[in-house]
Amino acid sequence: MCIFCKIINGEIPSYKVYEDTDFLAFLDISQAEIGHTLVVPKKHFDNFLEMDDKTAEKLIVLVKKLALKIKKATNASGINILNNNGAAAGQSVNHVHFHIIPRYENDDLVMKFTEHKLSQEDFISLLNKIKQE
Amino acid sequence: MCIFCKIINGEIPSYKVYEDTDFLAFLDISQAEIGHTLVVPKKHFDNFLEMDDKTAEKLIVLVKKLALKIKKATNASGINILNNNGAAAGQSVNHVHFHIIPRYENDDLVMKFTEHKLSQEDFISLLNKIKQE
Repeated sequence: MCIFCKIINGEIPSYKVYEDTDFLAFLDISQAEIGHTLVVPKKHFDNFLEMDDKTAEKLIVLVKKLALKIKKATNASGINILNNNGAAAGQSVNHVHFHIIPRYENDDLVMKFTEHKLSQEDFISLLNKIKQE
Repeated sequence: MCIFCKIINGEIPSYKVYEDTDFLAFLDISQAEIGHTLVVPKKHFDNFLEMDDKTAEKLIVLVKKLALKIKKATNASGINILNNNGAAAGQSVNHVHFHIIPRYENDDLVMKFTEHKLSQEDFISLLNKIKQE
């Protein structure tokens, strides 16, 4: 059983922000910024890409609602909503989870995107590959 | 008018991945990793926290669908789904957008989370603040 399933069934304790029949939200034990919360469905899906539409819809509405509450409670200046799919994307627990991360002016969270320059031809070729799927 | 509204109404060209009556998806002109796509509602909302539930539901289902297509088309190993709210969170255009970012083994995208260590007392105090909202 995965660690989040154990948190959901109470085998492992957590700081619960919210719970209903379908979802649990709890403070990330490793707080990237103060207020960092994870929102998970109680049903196990390895990642978001495998989740059914109905659960995804309910999940995102809950994420939005909790993000607003967390922003208020922490007086954060901003909020990141992040979902990682796959180890290459930084997913460390294979049970779908959305991160709600409050952000503060000049905090220490780093997201560094280096631009990969594409020619117009490259863009069009990429676009065609995606459209063919 | 914001730059994404101009892209939506065709004043500014874009590499369109998908379009319907409510949403547009286009390749980010600054490709953090190859296949980096933005999904936006045609209706202007400054950020995700201000969006109505119905639009959020439709948006996330579309994001999931496109993420799967983009992952296939790019042969990516993973996918980040990211939404930034507020300048402190890295939001650069004030029109809600979800990033779909394909990830590759040993790519150059950096997300660095430094743990903010909290005592049990701190966790409980934080939890109570959130629950009071």
